[in-house]
Amino acid sequence: MENKEPLYELEFIVRDYELDLQGIVNNSCYQQYLEHARHEFLFSKNIDFAKLHDEGKDLVVIRSEMDYKSSLKSRDRFKVTIDTSREGNLKIVFEQNIYRLPDMKLVVKAKITGACLLKGRPSKPEDVMDISLLGLSY
Amino acid sequence: MENKEPLYELEFIVRDYELDLQGIVNNSCYQQYLEHARHEFLFSKNIDFAKLHDEGKDLVVIRSEMDYKSSLKSRDRFKVTIDTSREGNLKIVFEQNIYRLPDMKLVVKAKITGACLLKGRPSKPEDVMDISLLGLSY
Amino acid sequence: MENKEPLYELEFIVRDYELDLQGIVNNSCYQQYLEHARHEFLFSKNIDFAKLHDEGKDLVVIRSEMDYKSSLKSRDRFKVTIDTSREGNLKIVFEQNIYRLPDMKLVVKAKITGACLLKGRPSKPEDVMDISLLGLSY
Amino acid sequence: MENKEPLYELEFIVRDYELDLQGIVNNSCYQQYLEHARHEFLFSKNIDFAKLHDEGKDLVVIRSEMDYKSSLKSRDRFKVTIDTSREGNLKIVFEQNIYRLPDMKLVVKAKITGACLLKGRPSKPEDVMDISLLGLSY
Repeated sequence: MENKEPLYELEFIVRDYELDLQGIVNNSCYQQYLEHARHEFLFSKNIDFAKLHDEGKDLVVIRSEMDYKSSLKSRDRFKVTIDTSREGNLKIVFEQNIYRLPDMKLVVKAKITGACLLKGRPSKPEDVMDISLLGLSY
Repeated sequence: MENKEPLYELEFIVRDYELDLQGIVNNSCYQQYLEHARHEFLFSKNIDFAKLHDEGKDLVVIRSEMDYKSSLKSRDRFKVTIDTSREGNLKIVFEQNIYRLPDMKLVVKAKITGACLLKGRPSKPEDVMDISLLGLSY
Repeated sequence: MENKEPLYELEFIVRDYELDLQGIVNNSCYQQYLEHARHEFLFSKNIDFAKLHDEGKDLVVIRSEMDYKSSLKSRDRFKVTIDTSREGNLKIVFEQNIYRLPDMKLVVKAKITGACLLKGRPSKPEDVMDISLLGLSY
Repeated sequence: MENKEPLYELEFIVRDYELDLQGIVNNSCYQQYLEHARHEFLFSKNIDFAKLHDEGKDLVVIRSEMDYKSSLKSRDRFKVTIDTSREGNLKIVFEQNIYRLPDMKLVVKAKITGACLLKGRPSKPEDVMDISLLGLSY
């Protein structure tokens, strides 16, 4: 676990339907947790993913890297943290970790790279939404 | 198992991510199987669920009754059958069964009641789509 | 909405990955919400679904009836309520409603019937777990 | 698209419940497709993921890298290809691509790294299963 406070964090509890036959959370669910945390983070910064879509503006993931360090089991509490940075003109990077609570054991370490689309075409993030609150730095 | 040929049927295989910690298919997946079979059935009758939605026409489920008779396990093959009927002016009923293959053991017996929306308002099915091929009978 | 306090209730927020192409929560997710609420309810009464399974004791759903009254959209808050009763010697009935918050609009009205298995064989609930706290009444 | 025949490939069709509010397949589903294809590949080589688990042997994903190149829409047909290699003593690498059919447009390019557990402890793949048919090469 890192010492620095993350830009954003969100708490969850494992739901039993997310477990697979090994009794642990299925890998695809971690990606769902990360997505939900990103959307809640964006919403907390006045960026509404669903409303943007209705306006022809989409945020899409173009690359994900995930290291699965340990597993979550039935009813485990955990939190997803988010830090952001920028890569080139077009990409936003979300560094997202999942930690089990309360012992803060690292479960997943992820780097999710996103891009913005305006009516389906790649666009600079600032042309799609107000990114001033997203903590982006080169 | 019934003797009569169903109006439509579709074959599947269980995917391991659909199993839960009991090693059997999670109940919510049966509803997904039924939905996929309905959409494929409709498509086979020239009714495209996604395209209808883009035209402001939606088919929605208003009631589901499901009896879970037995379970599906890892890599089980199964089929979903569909028969249809009409209930009143507004409702379409899908009688859908799930049978394990090849032994035709009954897994789920379901009655799914749907309705049609035109720009969000309840409408007669014939005002939303061409239902002549759906095998509906009072 | 009914006036009586439910036996148990649990709050959720819609996650965007639960929405389908109609922009509303996919029907199969409602079943997942109901299941998660039941497991949390049971846990609050000292019945641990995952641990029971490890001991060869399973709770299974044998029938579900669900009326879909309205839809949930992106980031809607909602709660799932639970009331219980008994049907015959073997069945436990969960009356579960989903209400949108804060306006308490009814979204789903469900009746979920469960049964207990001891090493795969149907058993009376009291032979599988301590049901004294489940509020069951004939 | 590469010229070489992949070691294994499996065909799918998009199911509407896999689409999100953007009308495209949700990213978490791509991971599910990749997992299902891996399990089917393993099964075709006489390695049964579910049975191994019952014997205390587990295959786990320890790292995933996925590039999302284009999107799948309602009812798109697609195939998942698999090639394998070995990394060090403990890791198996699955190079997996998803191509839309019939035009073979690249949708996802993935590198999934797996490891084997024997009663929860990291083990060499050959100590957990017969890997002679997996096409592994250093």
